[in-house]
Amino acid sequence: MTVTRSDLANAIRVLSMDAIEKAKSGHPGMPMGMADIAEVLWNDFLVHNPADPHWPNRDRFLLSNGHGSMLQYALLHLTGYDLSIDDLKQFRQWHSKTPGHPEYRDTPGVETTTGPLGQGLANGVGMALAEQILGRHFNRPDHEIINHYTYVFLGDGCLMEGISHEACSLAGVWGLNKLICFYDDNNISIDGHVDDWFADDTPARFRAYGWHVIPGVDGHDPEAVKKAILEARAQTTKPTLICCKTVIGHGSPNKAGTHDVHGAPLGAEEIALTRKNLGWSGEPFEVPEAIYRAFDARGKGEQAQAEWKERFAKYRELFPQDAAELERRWAGKASPEFDRAIADLIAEFRKDPPKIATRVASGKCIQAVAKAVPEFVGGSADLTPSNNTRWKEALDIGKHRLMGNYIHYGVREFGMAAIMNGMALYGGLLPFGGTFLIFSDYARNAIRMSALMGLRVIYIMTHDSIGLGEDGPTHQPVEQVNSLRLVPNLHVWRPADAVETATAWEISVKQERTPSLLALSRQNLAPLPHSDATIAGARRGGYVLKDAEGGEPAGILIATGSEVELALAAQARLAERGVAVRVVSMPCVELFDAQDANYRESVLPSKVTRRLAIEAGTTALWYKYVGLQGAVIGIDRFGASAPAPVIFEKLGFTVDHIVDTFQGL
Amino acid sequence: MTVTRSDLANAIRVLSMDAIEKAKSGHPGMPMGMADIAEVLWNDFLVHNPADPHWPNRDRFLLSNGHGSMLQYALLHLTGYDLSIDDLKQFRQWHSKTPGHPEYRDTPGVETTTGPLGQGLANGVGMALAEQILGRHFNRPDHEIINHYTYVFLGDGCLMEGISHEACSLAGVWGLNKLICFYDDNNISIDGHVDDWFADDTPARFRAYGWHVIPGVDGHDPEAVKKAILEARAQTTKPTLICCKTVIGHGSPNKAGTHDVHGAPLGAEEIALTRKNLGWSGEPFEVPEAIYRAFDARGKGEQAQAEWKERFAKYRELFPQDAAELERRWAGKASPEFDRAIADLIAEFRKDPPKIATRVASGKCIQAVAKAVPEFVGGSADLTPSNNTRWKEALDIGKHRLMGNYIHYGVREFGMAAIMNGMALYGGLLPFGGTFLIFSDYARNAIRMSALMGLRVIYIMTHDSIGLGEDGPTHQPVEQVNSLRLVPNLHVWRPADAVETATAWEISVKQERTPSLLALSRQNLAPLPHSDATIAGARRGGYVLKDAEGGEPAGILIATGSEVELALAAQARLAERGVAVRVVSMPCVELFDAQDANYRESVLPSKVTRRLAIEAGTTALWYKYVGLQGAVIGIDRFGASAPAPVIFEKLGFTVDHIVDTFQGL
Repeated sequence: MTVTRSDLANAIRVLSMDAIEKAKSGHPGMPMGMADIAEVLWNDFLVHNPADPHWPNRDRFLLSNGHGSMLQYALLHLTGYDLSIDDLKQFRQWHSKTPGHPEYRDTPGVETTTGPLGQGLANGVGMALAEQILGRHFNRPDHEIINHYTYVFLGDGCLMEGISHEACSLAGVWGLNKLICFYDDNNISIDGHVDDWFADDTPARFRAYGWHVIPGVDGHDPEAVKKAILEARAQTTKPTLICCKTVIGHGSPNKAGTHDVHGAPLGAEEIALTRKNLGWSGEPFEVPEAIYRAFDARGKGEQAQAEWKERFAKYRELFPQDAAELERRWAGKASPEFDRAIADLIAEFRKDPPKIATRVASGKCIQAVAKAVPEFVGGSADLTPSNNTRWKEALDIGKHRLMGNYIHYGVREFGMAAIMNGMALYGGLLPFGGTFLIFSDYARNAIRMSALMGLRVIYIMTHDSIGLGEDGPTHQPVEQVNSLRLVPNLHVWRPADAVETATAWEISVKQERTPSLLALSRQNLAPLPHSDATIAGARRGGYVLKDAEGGEPAGILIATGSEVELALAAQARLAERGVAVRVVSMPCVELFDAQDANYRESVLPSKVTRRLAIEAGTTALWYKYVGLQGAVIGIDRFGASAPAPVIFEKLGFTVDHIVDTFQGL
Repeated sequence: MTVTRSDLANAIRVLSMDAIEKAKSGHPGMPMGMADIAEVLWNDFLVHNPADPHWPNRDRFLLSNGHGSMLQYALLHLTGYDLSIDDLKQFRQWHSKTPGHPEYRDTPGVETTTGPLGQGLANGVGMALAEQILGRHFNRPDHEIINHYTYVFLGDGCLMEGISHEACSLAGVWGLNKLICFYDDNNISIDGHVDDWFADDTPARFRAYGWHVIPGVDGHDPEAVKKAILEARAQTTKPTLICCKTVIGHGSPNKAGTHDVHGAPLGAEEIALTRKNLGWSGEPFEVPEAIYRAFDARGKGEQAQAEWKERFAKYRELFPQDAAELERRWAGKASPEFDRAIADLIAEFRKDPPKIATRVASGKCIQAVAKAVPEFVGGSADLTPSNNTRWKEALDIGKHRLMGNYIHYGVREFGMAAIMNGMALYGGLLPFGGTFLIFSDYARNAIRMSALMGLRVIYIMTHDSIGLGEDGPTHQPVEQVNSLRLVPNLHVWRPADAVETATAWEISVKQERTPSLLALSRQNLAPLPHSDATIAGARRGGYVLKDAEGGEPAGILIATGSEVELALAAQARLAERGVAVRVVSMPCVELFDAQDANYRESVLPSKVTRRLAIEAGTTALWYKYVGLQGAVIGIDRFGASAPAPVIFEKLGFTVDHIVDTFQGL
């Protein structure tokens, strides 16, 4: 059998059709439309080793239009990854290696979880940036150990989403020339032909971002695709968008070019017709050996990696410290220096307790540990002076200036978060980024993706409540802390003073598969009365800050953040009245929930049912801790524009109100 | 005193400086930078009547860069709105008419709440679209009763935000020629000079969207601004972006052109220097009479409105039904025909109970009532066939085709939501729009803005849980229903069958100041055993669906949506075991919470403490109803890709597990 490029692409088409048909669910249109492009990229250009999907200097391939997952699974299978034909037969089944959308950690070779449109593209920008940053930090003349491409497939949907604007504008500013994107310009989205809702001149739009654009490439002509990729790789200062004209569901005689083929199996009859049309004779899931041989990337990949290993060995010889540092970073572990630096800072905060905003405390944490965490890539969505995210020695990344560790993301919260995800996925970097907590709303699904993928990303979200005052309800995040607590595998911290803030940083940097979000105050907060025990407690997410004097507490006040000092004042007032209550500080609810039952019981004993939670946010979640007999002082309305002390008072955050409410229980 | 245009603009500058100084908080840079542009627009072009800010045919003015609120307040005050100098002195104070950011309903003349960047611009697109839609439906040859401009001020931040891409791409597709936007191109954002993070060729970008762009206008030259506005108004097929070069904080000798002037008071000393520099001699908050006279828009406004009233009177004479319909719509009330149509549908669902997905039931609701709600403007973010948002007779809005009532928004959830807000603010239209519930994340802050502004917008969010099956965790909204329940003033519905879905539609259409979000199933749900009482209960958000047989319940099962039928099955199983429990269906938690205590007690009697809540989502919120003695069967992890029945079973949504859990209480 002579294998043509068409045969190779058709193998992707047929496997996609077959797996989707077997699952009775999936999206055949995109894999069939982009099969020719993928075949050229993977067979002629992509540098990867199926036997070691984690090899650091591999090219990255991202499927931003992740609903076409079968394209990627077919490629991984055909090129020799640990993904068998039986795995393809398990497409979209419980605990299979081939879930509906590509999921990071589920499938060898999948670099990021995609599906929520536009985010894979932004992850790609983050990876291409990470490659440049790490390359500039670690490469030495004649010793380029980090040097590869990042390739992204994307569709109309990705380009319609706002995040594509945020991420691609930045990719242009940065001049990420090793980012090469393939736009599947098939003119079809779920509602039909896109002309009535998507009429952008996309090449002109991307040129306006400073990209190199190769328009009008026939996505079914392998030579045209190859030529475009060569042209893209020749770019030295700009990312490239290759606009590929394709036919969705290419090969299907009756459904190609229509939205019917986008998101549903073709059906047995049309599959049979398509096989005939493509000249494909095999049974379902049957791939000729010759095609496997042509796709097999294992030999080439092993060789490429071996060459790199040799390069890296020489590098290690010449630059042993750099090599060791890079390997430490790739392992994703915090340095011992970090432990020391943060411990020193906590000691300093305890010695001379500062009355500062937790956002300022966070800034001090960053300043104190940055030297010990050279993998930090900090940044802010245009709120650097407010978020306190920049340390003095930070080096700004800017226009075509990529030697640095601090990113001014501009007013692009969603893009920032997804780019941070890309950098965290890339490895070797620990990204953190700031904005106002309210604008976590803008970034929300990317924060979710950090959590879903289990990435070490740290969100610094300042101006955490009505405490921001005059900017008013559009800027006061009354429901955000609680709504973020609902995201699985996300640590949401709302520290109450400088020590708790440092603890939040300590735990966050040491996470390996959990992102963290620090909700920090704009206003100054009084230092809490800490002991070794309270600090150990803070590390567990919730703890007895100050117990009832003289034995059994008559009740418990639970508070977080700026409301802890109020709780302490109420405790004192109640004590004057002969009512001895315990104050529990709960800086990280999720971490507290993850403690063993004994510990939780020791902090919140079941028999103490008079419980009052106090937090300047929505109340509903706190009933989990106070029960139906308890009460919550919170905010179940939007905030207001006024000086912060006025709003706190008007909304009931006073010692009097706390004491009265508790005594009314 | 001869009043020059500079004097007029300086009045805005000085009032802004003074109010911000007095509040010790605010953003003087933008009002000082855009004062000249605003002066020209308001004095030479804007058609409005300060005495009647709700006059339907007024021009709309939106301040998308809402942090510059003092610009708008100064203009409203100077042109004669009910906003006194004392109101300006109360800038950013509790319950003042001049909050930190412009807030709809707080200040006469403020058309929308702005501050979250980019959204005001998208609201403007919605308003300009609404003007075109209503004009096309109601204008008659020689009787143009709806015909005016929408003007939007915006800054670098708005243009960096992704939502600007979504909304402006659509404005280009639609050809909204009466939308005129002014870009405050001052090259400064909070992090400093924008060159290192915002290097777009913005004119080229907007031309790529199909806009008319007027680049390089000197924003401090009134003649140049005037010429640009005239050019923009001459456009017949394209929206216009006027790019105005300005100096942030113009007039301040030491701070102009720097980010120091963006978000903090200038300080007494710099204010004095600025006054001197501007040649302004008055005391704080003192404005010369001549300047008030020059700004006063009351006479001109009254005359303009009087002319329109005359036109409308003639229109009413000739087209009495259209005039009556328009007035009904402007009043924002549902029609009596709607009540009948939805009642008929509920009767039909009861007569022949269908086993259908609630998304399908919702589609039937739309189909059944659309004729009775001609103010509907439906749509979907490219998921029309999945969201079931389109009715048969709907007329599609498309490329330069604005006679219609259905919008294909493309894959632009955030833009869709903010455009719907703009249409709802405009009046005369009832927008609803669909996407998958998971992508409420993308639109989240605009949903919040619907709630904050109290707008009648209906979100149709389908594929509401793990019930969507194979698409997997990226598409399974395990935390979204609960996180949306935390947004104040938002009704979140999760109906359990067709009847509850119709009830949700009934209540949602009749809201006047509360947006609604319907979380609807992908999969079929069994019809519930309804009676008049259960339907009355559904209208209250939560109710006893099926009580324990034979008196006092031994416990309560609370469920929503697809889990209600499971709860009923568990109730039957428990009954077999001699345990009589009550089943409560809770389609809208917020509405249930808003009922009086007696009603709530009748549904959830305090003495019944064995309570189990069942919902395919995060559990934390349910402890508010089940207490510390109760339990919740839910999902505190991400979902998985597999057929829906498998996931439900694996995650514990089985009758056995419910029964066991209840009996373990």
